[in-house]
Amino acid sequence: MQYHLNGFRPGDPEIFEAAPGFQESGAGFPEKVDVLIVGSGPAGLTLAAQLSAFPDIVTRIVERRSGPLEKGQADGISCRSMEMFNAFGFAEKILKQGYWVNETTFWKPDPEHPEHIVRNGRIQDVEDGLSEMPHMILNQARVHDMFLEVMRNSRTRLEPDYSLQFTGLTVDPDDTDYPVTVTMQRIDSDRDGEQVTVKARYVVGCDGARSAVRKAIGRELIGDSANQAWGVMDVLAVTDFPDIRCKTLIQSAKEGNVIIIPREGGFLVRLYIELDKLDPGERVSNRTMTVDHLVAAAQRIFRPYSFSAKEVVWWSVYEIGQRLTDKFDDVPQDQTESRSPRVFIAGDACHTHSPKAGQGMNVSMGDAFNLGWKLVHVLQGHSTPQLLHSYSSERQRVAQELIDFDRKWSKIMSERPESGVSSSGETPRFQRYFIEHGRYTAGMSVKYENSRLTGMPTWQSHATGFEIGTRFHSSPVIRLADAKRVELGHTVTADTRWRLFAFCPNEDPSLSSSSIAQLCQFLQTDDASPILTHTPVGADLDAFLDFRVIFQQSSRELALETLPSLLLPRKGKLGLVDYEKVFCADRRNGHDIFDLRGIDRTHGCIVIVRPDQYIGHILPLDGFSELSTFFARLYQL
Amino acid sequence: MQYHLNGFRPGDPEIFEAAPGFQESGAGFPEKVDVLIVGSGPAGLTLAAQLSAFPDIVTRIVERRSGPLEKGQADGISCRSMEMFNAFGFAEKILKQGYWVNETTFWKPDPEHPEHIVRNGRIQDVEDGLSEMPHMILNQARVHDMFLEVMRNSRTRLEPDYSLQFTGLTVDPDDTDYPVTVTMQRIDSDRDGEQVTVKARYVVGCDGARSAVRKAIGRELIGDSANQAWGVMDVLAVTDFPDIRCKTLIQSAKEGNVIIIPREGGFLVRLYIELDKLDPGERVSNRTMTVDHLVAAAQRIFRPYSFSAKEVVWWSVYEIGQRLTDKFDDVPQDQTESRSPRVFIAGDACHTHSPKAGQGMNVSMGDAFNLGWKLVHVLQGHSTPQLLHSYSSERQRVAQELIDFDRKWSKIMSERPESGVSSSGETPRFQRYFIEHGRYTAGMSVKYENSRLTGMPTWQSHATGFEIGTRFHSSPVIRLADAKRVELGHTVTADTRWRLFAFCPNEDPSLSSSSIAQLCQFLQTDDASPILTHTPVGADLDAFLDFRVIFQQSSRELALETLPSLLLPRKGKLGLVDYEKVFCADRRNGHDIFDLRGIDRTHGCIVIVRPDQYIGHILPLDGFSELSTFFARLYQL
Ligand SMILES: Cc1cc2nc3c(=O)[nH]c(=O)nc-3n(C[C@H](O)[C@H](O)[C@H](O)COP(=O)(O)OP(=O)(O)OC[C@H]3O[C@@H](n4cnc5c(N)ncnc54)[C@H](O)[C@@H]3O)c2cc1C
Ligand SMILES: Cc1cc2nc3c(=O)[nH]c(=O)nc-3n(C[C@H](O)[C@H](O)[C@H](O)COP(=O)(O)OP(=O)(O)OC[C@H]3O[C@@H](n4cnc5c(N)ncnc54)[C@H](O)[C@@H]3O)c2cc1C
Repeated sequence: MQYHLNGFRPGDPEIFEAAPGFQESGAGFPEKVDVLIVGSGPAGLTLAAQLSAFPDIVTRIVERRSGPLEKGQADGISCRSMEMFNAFGFAEKILKQGYWVNETTFWKPDPEHPEHIVRNGRIQDVEDGLSEMPHMILNQARVHDMFLEVMRNSRTRLEPDYSLQFTGLTVDPDDTDYPVTVTMQRIDSDRDGEQVTVKARYVVGCDGARSAVRKAIGRELIGDSANQAWGVMDVLAVTDFPDIRCKTLIQSAKEGNVIIIPREGGFLVRLYIELDKLDPGERVSNRTMTVDHLVAAAQRIFRPYSFSAKEVVWWSVYEIGQRLTDKFDDVPQDQTESRSPRVFIAGDACHTHSPKAGQGMNVSMGDAFNLGWKLVHVLQGHSTPQLLHSYSSERQRVAQELIDFDRKWSKIMSERPESGVSSSGETPRFQRYFIEHGRYTAGMSVKYENSRLTGMPTWQSHATGFEIGTRFHSSPVIRLADAKRVELGHTVTADTRWRLFAFCPNEDPSLSSSSIAQLCQFLQTDDASPILTHTPVGADLDAFLDFRVIFQQSSRELALETLPSLLLPRKGKLGLVDYEKVFCADRRNGHDIFDLRGIDRTHGCIVIVRPDQYIGHILPLDGFSELSTFFARLYQL
Repeated sequence: MQYHLNGFRPGDPEIFEAAPGFQESGAGFPEKVDVLIVGSGPAGLTLAAQLSAFPDIVTRIVERRSGPLEKGQADGISCRSMEMFNAFGFAEKILKQGYWVNETTFWKPDPEHPEHIVRNGRIQDVEDGLSEMPHMILNQARVHDMFLEVMRNSRTRLEPDYSLQFTGLTVDPDDTDYPVTVTMQRIDSDRDGEQVTVKARYVVGCDGARSAVRKAIGRELIGDSANQAWGVMDVLAVTDFPDIRCKTLIQSAKEGNVIIIPREGGFLVRLYIELDKLDPGERVSNRTMTVDHLVAAAQRIFRPYSFSAKEVVWWSVYEIGQRLTDKFDDVPQDQTESRSPRVFIAGDACHTHSPKAGQGMNVSMGDAFNLGWKLVHVLQGHSTPQLLHSYSSERQRVAQELIDFDRKWSKIMSERPESGVSSSGETPRFQRYFIEHGRYTAGMSVKYENSRLTGMPTWQSHATGFEIGTRFHSSPVIRLADAKRVELGHTVTADTRWRLFAFCPNEDPSLSSSSIAQLCQFLQTDDASPILTHTPVGADLDAFLDFRVIFQQSSRELALETLPSLLLPRKGKLGLVDYEKVFCADRRNGHDIFDLRGIDRTHGCIVIVRPDQYIGHILPLDGFSELSTFFARLYQL
């Protein structure tokens, strides 16, 4: 963490200084806002946390509920979401408080006593090296709390406005300032029914599967409605089932399937219980379903093990189908050239699917993280509003893949385990499918297609392990100035800046003829330099593009004082030196980033990383004009 | 982290539920307290944080200052202190916010241009494997903040009483209830001068080098008074000195020595500047010394590098000698048989020394951590007050070693670097001394001598890497129930419980003849079992002695369901199963704890760990009577 740049400030550096005018929470709701977020689920809070860092952007987030969520809903946090949480600064808290998914076990009917289950396999949950972050489980409410804390500690001290329900909106395309007019209704007991009207530059509907914002822009969830019902319960239970603290998939012969998700704190566990597969006599409609039915079903599936629920913390019957909206903003497909979007939807408002692959929270947060920086860049005037079209086009495709995946996954999960029973020893299909799709469920399969934001793979061979369009895969490196081992990916924080990582050939960087010196020279002096072109006047040199360099040499072979001055930039109002721009490969223990990510040691390369941590482009180290063009295309559309 | 044991509670699990009566901070100062802590420096806050977990103990901490410290004083956090912080639950925050000391560099006069300095060496700061924690640097004020947060989030919601100055005390040996009467004076503007009297069972003077508590019990700091003056400043500076982000020791030819301590946040740095070695014309007394003198001295020592101070955050002239009190409580040496102590002193109140070895905060916190659990055990009635004598006897010896070390260290640090200059290439003495004493400065050399608390090394050969009397050296292990890799030492939290780690031979634990089954049998059923003897009625089985087991086998070779039931204890008001008692060696990557700690694979062993993380004893797995005796001697004195 870097802090004290503009002078020493006592106290917790993670509580930012409130910007002028933001010390106290606002009196009443403003008449005009830059961004109105509807809904404080994972999508809304991710976006609000991102925007809350910017006092020059007026953001509000409204929520129908009367206060923060306390329990229930989703709990799976993919490796990819953990990487994003790290960018927001709270990954270490999740690592401390949450459950780590280390192994997944599989149970099937005992071939000899099919009425009993028996362990059929045990696998490592996440393949080695897939991410520096583990797969975690934590109550969605706690994830909300972490985002709320980021907002509360931000420069704008943003808090949701609770008990405020979105009721409708209109967009006036002729109003270029605040084209969206939103109506809302207070639903707190003392002001119940009171109408609130607000004008907004942008509205983001993060209001869940029954999204009123989606309806207001005339979009629909299309697909299979509620084709499956699963019971879910969070329970403090006593059982002699030995894998109760492992993520476990159980297929019983006749009683249906259960997924066990061990939970945070060491005692709590979540069970997903397939309701379709209850005994015919047991089949109950959503209405009459009680928690006792769920417990009884679990008890039958767990046989020969006992299962006794001591406290059911939360339960629900989660009926859902795979549904998707065709576009995630208010601009019809045939008008994208003439208009830019003003209203967006994100998360469950755009896509719904079963909870079984643990994607609910994750994809929703991913939507918001894709949108956040784009809104900031447009609102701050770096970019024209055209940039905002990319949100729907990028995320709709991701959602389509999710729906396709979930449809297959749900089908396989609900299969009866006939084959497993008949030929003992054969790996059931759901187990094979699970293993095959580890990367998908870890959140690592998202790949944005070529666009203005994501370059062509012309120079992909310079860094085969950094696939363009996928998330920047972190790796440890050694910081030159203080020999600290750090994760390179952790320099990409949720501050909406672009990153430019230069991986150097094995050359002497003190020579002005070296390729890194040449690149610095270009960035620092050339009129076409994206740093010179896009950095706001008066801002630090790295305010738009955060330039960092990774050498192959060990730290002892390099002399800090001989490096190009751009690598030791002077920053802040005191003009202090930033010593955190230069790294070396970690040559101990086989952690060399050049090897791990297939970086061309002879030529090196430039890796452009987007503000949402995805790889925007790979360029040769001397690809100066390509570098300029990449940003010019984006920002001078 | 384990939580939700007694039912689900929403919100942050690190904020404990306030005990009845503790929801609001107390109205006024109570007339009687169990423990009165004087002074909220590192020693006082460590003790207060520890006691704050116990609603049955009335604790107050008074502080003369009007509020929390904001800057200055110490900043070095040894590996050992980090281990202790982990027990209090905030190590990960220090890891995130603080500076990691990775390398230390040494500079000496350039043999060719002795008026210039030149790098003479660079070493890894802490030897590999010494601790799972790094050596850290962070503003003492921030460490205070972390303890204050532990207190605030504890069941008693303890806060210091500020602007309250201890003025005197008397001990009435005939009053067995509240023998200490303390007088204090309010020094806040509105109630200035108001007297407060309180009766206490115990008083702990953590009131620094000029301790009034120490004086009140008639003890004295003895030694060299203020024989050295060093200037210290925390500064935001610009320099071209390349090692400004490494811990660095500079010996100049004629201008004196500087120690550079890079600080948290990436920009701040602390300089210790030897004032003795200023040019004669520059020598200034404490009174007339200004920050400009310090900056000028630094500039001369840094030559040929430039040094420009942009903001001096804090500075001081720290004049100190090596001084020590002969005993840390109020009982004269010749009365230890007849009386038990009622007043203690800890931290700088007992010992002062130079700041150069970075021990200030660390040893003070170590004092308090040694005392805390003993006070709890006595106040809760587990132990007779005799236990309290061990505080002074254990810690006075540690302090004596500190003073001896510091005297040598200070002398060497202040030597003129003649030899270094004359024969170029020779490693200066201070550099050699630094390397040799790495374990000392890391806080790892403390070893409590044999006593009731610390057994004889009869069975030391069963675990050569766990030296009796030293701190329990953590190592990674795999938790059986969920295959999570954890640090075994991190199970020893600051909850004042004893730990019993059983390392098993390679046997089948499901056999009732196995040594682990036998040990469980003894612990669970034998009248002499320390668990049955010392666990309070109605409390969980592990409330006094937390029993955990480590197997040599990999997790896949063991079946949880076949283990002795004591290893899956039922706990809390719901009778839930605790799945975190059983571990396996981590057999990947050469991290096997049996190898790392020299544990006898044929016989296994028992390691008894004290509540302050020091090793109390090593016993054979079947040393049942020794085990009983160890606790019986301690608790039925
Ligand atoms: C009852 C329930 C159970 C679930 N169980 C699981 C599960 O077991 N496993 C799993 O993986 N996923 C589960 N999910 C899904 C998972 O929680 C979602 O995928 C995830 O929360 C999506 O995040 P989101 O931010 O898009 O929407 P949501 O989390 O649904 O957030 C939408 C928010 O908008 C608010 N809102 C809605 N309409 C308005 C309005 N008009 N005005 C103001 N505010 C409004 C809502 O109150 C809500 O807080 C469950 C969801 C629900 C609702
Ligand atoms: C000015 C200063 C500079 C220092 N600089 C360094 C440094 O550069 N490097 C380093 O390693 N160490 C330094 N130290 C030492 C380091 O801070 C101490 O070793 C460490 O703080 C000891 O902790 P402690 O809790 O024993 O005492 P302290 O931290 O001294 O805490 C004692 C507390 O007791 C309070 N107190 C005193 N008398 C009373 C009373 N009568 N009633 C109520 N409260 C009282 C004080 O206000 C203080 O808060 C410095 C200390 C001081 C005072």
